[in-house]
Amino acid sequence: MNTLEIKALLEAVANGNISVDEGAKELEMLPFSDLGYAVIDHHRAHRTGHPEVIYCEGKTSEQVTGIVQHMVEKGVNILATRASQDVFNAVVDQCPSARYNPLGRTITINSHDVSSSEDFVAIVAAGTSDLPVVEEAYETVMALGFRAEKIVDVGVAGIHRLFARLDTIRKAKVIIVVAGMEGALASVVGGLVDKPIIAVPTSVGYGASFGGISALLTMLNSCSSGVTVVNIDNGFGAAFAAAQIMRL
Amino acid sequence: MNTLEIKALLEAVANGNISVDEGAKELEMLPFSDLGYAVIDHHRAHRTGHPEVIYCEGKTSEQVTGIVQHMVEKGVNILATRASQDVFNAVVDQCPSARYNPLGRTITINSHDVSSSEDFVAIVAAGTSDLPVVEEAYETVMALGFRAEKIVDVGVAGIHRLFARLDTIRKAKVIIVVAGMEGALASVVGGLVDKPIIAVPTSVGYGASFGGISALLTMLNSCSSGVTVVNIDNGFGAAFAAAQIMRL
Amino acid sequence: MNTLEIKALLEAVANGNISVDEGAKELEMLPFSDLGYAVIDHHRAHRTGHPEVIYCEGKTSEQVTGIVQHMVEKGVNILATRASQDVFNAVVDQCPSARYNPLGRTITINSHDVSSSEDFVAIVAAGTSDLPVVEEAYETVMALGFRAEKIVDVGVAGIHRLFARLDTIRKAKVIIVVAGMEGALASVVGGLVDKPIIAVPTSVGYGASFGGISALLTMLNSCSSGVTVVNIDNGFGAAFAAAQIMRL
Amino acid sequence: MNTLEIKALLEAVANGNISVDEGAKELEMLPFSDLGYAVIDHHRAHRTGHPEVIYCEGKTSEQVTGIVQHMVEKGVNILATRASQDVFNAVVDQCPSARYNPLGRTITINSHDVSSSEDFVAIVAAGTSDLPVVEEAYETVMALGFRAEKIVDVGVAGIHRLFARLDTIRKAKVIIVVAGMEGALASVVGGLVDKPIIAVPTSVGYGASFGGISALLTMLNSCSSGVTVVNIDNGFGAAFAAAQIMRL
Amino acid sequence: MNTLEIKALLEAVANGNISVDEGAKELEMLPFSDLGYAVIDHHRAHRTGHPEVIYCEGKTSEQVTGIVQHMVEKGVNILATRASQDVFNAVVDQCPSARYNPLGRTITINSHDVSSSEDFVAIVAAGTSDLPVVEEAYETVMALGFRAEKIVDVGVAGIHRLFARLDTIRKAKVIIVVAGMEGALASVVGGLVDKPIIAVPTSVGYGASFGGISALLTMLNSCSSGVTVVNIDNGFGAAFAAAQIMRL
Amino acid sequence: MNTLEIKALLEAVANGNISVDEGAKELEMLPFSDLGYAVIDHHRAHRTGHPEVIYCEGKTSEQVTGIVQHMVEKGVNILATRASQDVFNAVVDQCPSARYNPLGRTITINSHDVSSSEDFVAIVAAGTSDLPVVEEAYETVMALGFRAEKIVDVGVAGIHRLFARLDTIRKAKVIIVVAGMEGALASVVGGLVDKPIIAVPTSVGYGASFGGISALLTMLNSCSSGVTVVNIDNGFGAAFAAAQIMRL
Amino acid sequence: MNTLEIKALLEAVANGNISVDEGAKELEMLPFSDLGYAVIDHHRAHRTGHPEVIYCEGKTSEQVTGIVQHMVEKGVNILATRASQDVFNAVVDQCPSARYNPLGRTITINSHDVSSSEDFVAIVAAGTSDLPVVEEAYETVMALGFRAEKIVDVGVAGIHRLFARLDTIRKAKVIIVVAGMEGALASVVGGLVDKPIIAVPTSVGYGASFGGISALLTMLNSCSSGVTVVNIDNGFGAAFAAAQIMRL
Amino acid sequence: MNTLEIKALLEAVANGNISVDEGAKELEMLPFSDLGYAVIDHHRAHRTGHPEVIYCEGKTSEQVTGIVQHMVEKGVNILATRASQDVFNAVVDQCPSARYNPLGRTITINSHDVSSSEDFVAIVAAGTSDLPVVEEAYETVMALGFRAEKIVDVGVAGIHRLFARLDTIRKAKVIIVVAGMEGALASVVGGLVDKPIIAVPTSVGYGASFGGISALLTMLNSCSSGVTVVNIDNGFGAAFAAAQIMRL
Repeated sequence: MNTLEIKALLEAVANGNISVDEGAKELEMLPFSDLGYAVIDHHRAHRTGHPEVIYCEGKTSEQVTGIVQHMVEKGVNILATRASQDVFNAVVDQCPSARYNPLGRTITINSHDVSSSEDFVAIVAAGTSDLPVVEEAYETVMALGFRAEKIVDVGVAGIHRLFARLDTIRKAKVIIVVAGMEGALASVVGGLVDKPIIAVPTSVGYGASFGGISALLTMLNSCSSGVTVVNIDNGFGAAFAAAQIMRL
Repeated sequence: MNTLEIKALLEAVANGNISVDEGAKELEMLPFSDLGYAVIDHHRAHRTGHPEVIYCEGKTSEQVTGIVQHMVEKGVNILATRASQDVFNAVVDQCPSARYNPLGRTITINSHDVSSSEDFVAIVAAGTSDLPVVEEAYETVMALGFRAEKIVDVGVAGIHRLFARLDTIRKAKVIIVVAGMEGALASVVGGLVDKPIIAVPTSVGYGASFGGISALLTMLNSCSSGVTVVNIDNGFGAAFAAAQIMRL
Repeated sequence: MNTLEIKALLEAVANGNISVDEGAKELEMLPFSDLGYAVIDHHRAHRTGHPEVIYCEGKTSEQVTGIVQHMVEKGVNILATRASQDVFNAVVDQCPSARYNPLGRTITINSHDVSSSEDFVAIVAAGTSDLPVVEEAYETVMALGFRAEKIVDVGVAGIHRLFARLDTIRKAKVIIVVAGMEGALASVVGGLVDKPIIAVPTSVGYGASFGGISALLTMLNSCSSGVTVVNIDNGFGAAFAAAQIMRL
Repeated sequence: MNTLEIKALLEAVANGNISVDEGAKELEMLPFSDLGYAVIDHHRAHRTGHPEVIYCEGKTSEQVTGIVQHMVEKGVNILATRASQDVFNAVVDQCPSARYNPLGRTITINSHDVSSSEDFVAIVAAGTSDLPVVEEAYETVMALGFRAEKIVDVGVAGIHRLFARLDTIRKAKVIIVVAGMEGALASVVGGLVDKPIIAVPTSVGYGASFGGISALLTMLNSCSSGVTVVNIDNGFGAAFAAAQIMRL
Repeated sequence: MNTLEIKALLEAVANGNISVDEGAKELEMLPFSDLGYAVIDHHRAHRTGHPEVIYCEGKTSEQVTGIVQHMVEKGVNILATRASQDVFNAVVDQCPSARYNPLGRTITINSHDVSSSEDFVAIVAAGTSDLPVVEEAYETVMALGFRAEKIVDVGVAGIHRLFARLDTIRKAKVIIVVAGMEGALASVVGGLVDKPIIAVPTSVGYGASFGGISALLTMLNSCSSGVTVVNIDNGFGAAFAAAQIMRL
Repeated sequence: MNTLEIKALLEAVANGNISVDEGAKELEMLPFSDLGYAVIDHHRAHRTGHPEVIYCEGKTSEQVTGIVQHMVEKGVNILATRASQDVFNAVVDQCPSARYNPLGRTITINSHDVSSSEDFVAIVAAGTSDLPVVEEAYETVMALGFRAEKIVDVGVAGIHRLFARLDTIRKAKVIIVVAGMEGALASVVGGLVDKPIIAVPTSVGYGASFGGISALLTMLNSCSSGVTVVNIDNGFGAAFAAAQIMRL
Repeated sequence: MNTLEIKALLEAVANGNISVDEGAKELEMLPFSDLGYAVIDHHRAHRTGHPEVIYCEGKTSEQVTGIVQHMVEKGVNILATRASQDVFNAVVDQCPSARYNPLGRTITINSHDVSSSEDFVAIVAAGTSDLPVVEEAYETVMALGFRAEKIVDVGVAGIHRLFARLDTIRKAKVIIVVAGMEGALASVVGGLVDKPIIAVPTSVGYGASFGGISALLTMLNSCSSGVTVVNIDNGFGAAFAAAQIMRL
Repeated sequence: MNTLEIKALLEAVANGNISVDEGAKELEMLPFSDLGYAVIDHHRAHRTGHPEVIYCEGKTSEQVTGIVQHMVEKGVNILATRASQDVFNAVVDQCPSARYNPLGRTITINSHDVSSSEDFVAIVAAGTSDLPVVEEAYETVMALGFRAEKIVDVGVAGIHRLFARLDTIRKAKVIIVVAGMEGALASVVGGLVDKPIIAVPTSVGYGASFGGISALLTMLNSCSSGVTVVNIDNGFGAAFAAAQIMRL
């Protein structure tokens, strides 16, 4: 395609339809706008069913609704993360079909039907306090067109609870492990399952958990090979990475 | 399979072929040895062509050659990482077919032929100082049975060098990005390519690079969605995670 | 016991009382539920007088009262930690016998009588600002069925105050030392008493106390042999560990 | 000049116009008041058009208006940074010509006309969340008498957006790069443009961004030569440094 | 006893057997020498079989042999920790019965027979690289007169290995858990066993393990109640604390 | 004196004025209460004019007024630090002569007249934002019976301002230097004056000042010999140390 | 020029000298190589007299001499930084005109004559231990074609030494301030001179200097406006930034 | 004095003894050389018996002997700190009266007789590993003309050892407390003695002592009022500060 456009231009020059000067000017602009388009292609996701993502942290309700309106007019699906109840209230006034997940603090608009594929992403979490991150990941996986299963409260302090759910976890194609405090769950799951594992440290804990640093270090140093890690509380990022694997 | 074994045992009990006491004893061992086998299955990799991995750091030449001898007798392929020249010398005395990658500090024994699959892992690195990590990752991908391509010295200070190799990178199924100093390459590649990206911070740098912490933080905070991260200088871990994705 | 159950099952299969298929199904569940039971045994504490523990931080009043109701119906004693006054108000509405320790922020329900044993846990604290942690530890020791003595405001700046209480401290079976700021008390007590010492750093202090890190490091580096440490402000954890020693 | 003054004084002593005692007194004050004057000269900026700068953080409205009144009476231009809306309200009551930039939290009084010079400072920012820092820098550059251009939302996750603005950036004399999260933009711009680059890390981000430390380290470790760095969120400092270069 | 001594002295004064001046002199010394003796009692361990402990780090061979000679003459048992081969060579020249543990870097002299008590301390370690710390703890437990069992290479990456040894671990009276890298083993053991657990983080690992900080934080934040922690690589301290519990 | 008391007691015993049992009881208390008295002597300061100090942070108004009432009845002078306006309101209701320094957040009761001694403590501060720490130090020096002079707003950015005040500073017996941000003032003063210098880092600053860590490190690393340092914002501690020197 | 090449190509197509297909192929490569050329232009510096820079850290003598040979053949001037004596020995064998600065650890080849311009960069350093960084900066400024003046050993502990050199410093166009330990020099110079100041923290110091972190934080938090900072010990980076300003 | 010199100069001008030009030249130098002289006065110590101090870290033997020669010719006493045996060997070749303290790594030349004053500085240290810092402090106090007493191995793990030496400590005018590991000794001494206390954290320890950070934080957070702190291992600095107090 890109090559086709270039050839068309060259033929126009060869045929004298455009001058050498005009051709030179157009060509100088080409590489970046072309490159830009490619980037937009996968990031802005004009492909069917992929949502635009709005990160709401530090944006006012007005800013978010402005962006939403612009996108809805273009017919794009939308996933908004880190959205407060106030932001949702403003969005739903404008766009009544918007749906809010108060725990995960996500807004979804025009989301497609839940995938009925056999393949799914398992989202495994240590404790109930990790639920906000679990829900952000869950909504993101779904908004990106895939199916997810939640397996919660299976922390290593009561490892039998994890084993009771191991069958489900092993059937997943990709596994997201969410844990705060000491974050040991990622290593244990990594030792039991032979699938890509994306670990999300959470800020759950106090004192020497240092807002998630303890869990982050645990996951980076995991003795189980093949565990990869995202930022603290970054349920969205883990789900996005999982979706990139699902898409292969 | 597991269920089949249990049923066979129960039928032996029902038929009186083995006593209740014998059956009880065997059953008590079952869950763990069975579980154990599963774990061994993917970690110790008795499946065709998968290597045993020996982490040599802090092991003496005697210890490493002892483990190697034990494994070679069992006919297993072997990948040894963080192996010094001295360790290799001891191993090759014992096992002449052993091959050493001095930059990546890896030893491979009985490794299968290089995969000729279309699919490959791209290992993209910022600078020549990152080569040890690149080579460790490269040897690991190959030892795990997959093909890898190295794209080195494409750091963001001269971004045209990255663009010149973008076509190759975009053809990869999984991308490992290796960078030290400020580690910005992962974010830039993440913005240009729509594939799973595993970032490896390296300890290359000085002063405020703090032995790789700067690059690690950069990668964890990447503004490009879907970048996952492994430990500093952990080329093996990134390659292991990439192989788990390739295997899907 | 566990073996007895397995034998009973096998005999039922041998006798044809249950089919091989039924037996296989039950057996598949056994190891984990059995293992699970053991874990529940000591964690969930069905043994007489041991409480269920609810960590209230980050749970809503509704969530806590829901858990309490479920447990009270099962006749379990309850210890709730990090409970705000609001949470207690909701709990006491539902369960009028609930008792609140506003300083220690603990709720106890159906707690047994205070132990009249000679043996006790000494809870030694540097200053009055450490009292919340002291009270959390005190309530936990009691809820776990043991006796505790509080020795407060004996910080090393006025070491005579500590000496005046040394006789009491030396009579304890286990000693919990609670201190913020520079946390030197643990080392001093460790040098004077030949008993297990569990040190709790507190977040009391300002500036370079870094929310308890200074006291934590002091205690980890104690020149007095045999001092062990728990997380910052973790009065519950210290008391739980002390109770595990008392129980021996 | 200074020497001239000293000689004049000595001649007055030599001529008996002033006594030795008077001369001694005056001389004792000379070096410091003279030195002091020089310092005041460039800091307090009595040169035409240079503003007095008031850092409002931690000052009450009364304190700020007191300083403003004192300066306005002396006819000085004023730039106040880190000014809340409340502080501005108090200032504008007293000085109706005061202008407020609510995003950049700056107040300007008696500012001269916008420079129409060809030369300008480019203020390049990664995302919209970095706008407060951009605006603080923008107002400062203008208050110091120079022209600035804002190029915002050109983060490396969509590098084509940066390329589309590269022509403008390359025309600048000095470039301020503002970025939070992983702060990679400074390195990328540094690799594309051969001008002095002053990088401002921002506290935008969460988790392992540690309030701007991640971006700060990225910029300090930049693999692009010649990038210099100021404190986190210090838009004023970057603009002041840029102005010092513009003034050469 | 102390009171008895004081009374005897007072009676001697009352009876005129000693003068007021002599009594005053003796009394002034009493509290500290008495207190001192108590401290010496448990630290210097004149009780049968308890060793003197010498921390060799930063001491020359001459200094260590000097201390050893002094103690041997007093007939005390000796445990020397962090002793290099050179230090041992010097000691064994002087004291041929000295025994060296090269892995644990301990020297023992005149150690009593290994305890044959039923009760024992379990020393559970994640990997073979943790062996130096395991051996230091093992020698210390024995030198303090108790029995220890080593359970090594049961890290959470292959959790079946831990389960295979669980019966032994559960029979212990006190459990020391030794682990580097992410240190998750302490939490997992803590969830499976209802005994006092003392966790020792080790400096095993690289990159973001930060010389043991990652394992230290993991253990401090353990979600398993009752885990207490000692300094990084402090096998001696954990064993000393375990012995204090065994002695109860 | 202490010896005198002991001798008096012994003589009372020798004379039969008190029984051996009574003497023993009193003597048992002696060493600690005696030691305690010494400690109280300088800490609680029963010497003429020395105040009791109450650290109000984390104490309720009730607690503070309770302590104040107890002390006032004993006729002691009082210095309360870190006292909020609310705490002062409660105290002044009870004790109308109480005086509040709202900037320094100190309360003084029954303070003696300001010292008219020639000797004084110079309190030198970099900026007006450091004033709360300056005032806390000022009130403390005065409450401890010494004279202090404040030299404020002499930060190194305008070093002539410091030089203009150097004569005063050089006349002081002890110098307290208070500075936030980069805290360079302590080094500069240390290079100019040959007197004991106590440096107080303050939490004034933002971004990479890390709540005072930057200034703290600057002062600890001062290239000017003889600068000693106290905790961040610890004006009281610096003044207490200065008073201990003044008292020599 | 770039445009000229494109026009030449287009004319070749218009003239039929090359086919449309050939033209398309060449053009596809163009934008990046073209962009690359621009980047090379300023980084690799084909402009008269600008050197190629080789960072030798972590490169073998063979690698460095290989790069040098390649460059010398192309007639480029060369600056090699962080070069050990061994590396220089290898280089000078191959290229006898190479010059070594053993303190600054730099190699220069074919460097042009020292600039005799009035304008110069002042390199101001606190102590003699900072000389390696001073020399690296000095050689870099000269290799980039500008003149530099060194003003060393003017640390703030003896501020009169700085004042004695102030006239020279004030005549500079750009000032590089090099300081370790507490790094206060940058703030003091910043308060005395109205020129662009680039601060280089050095790793000179011990204890709480943390390898240069203390000086780095001091400089980032400088209360003197307009100070910008580079990485610890990065004399090259500061000189490169200074040269970019000199070039304006 | 200073004023006298100025007046003398002015009178010489008034009398025509020197010309206005000569006077101006001399006066221009005056403020700095005068200021400089003052600084030199106390730092370079031309007062009787005060030594020049050479910090040898990072200086070659040649550099140190060069400085020594220059000073010896000027008849100054010398104290060299952080001097290796090699440096001393070079110095003693040149200056046979040089004396070396190998533990404290100090060289003294022409030092005056030990002070026989009643007043002394007590240097109190926790353990024998702290001796290098103790010796550096001891030599410094003596080189500065004062008397010091060493009280070593009185760490808080055996607090009776401290009490046995308390009488000596209390007689000191200034107390330096040297401690590594958890550094609790400073707080305990601070609670027992009413004298200026200067605390020196040492790098003695391992693991979480972080090279002295733990002891440093302990001392900064001391609950004993009036403890001031110097850099890690900075025995010289503590002694210099103590001498400044002794000199009052």
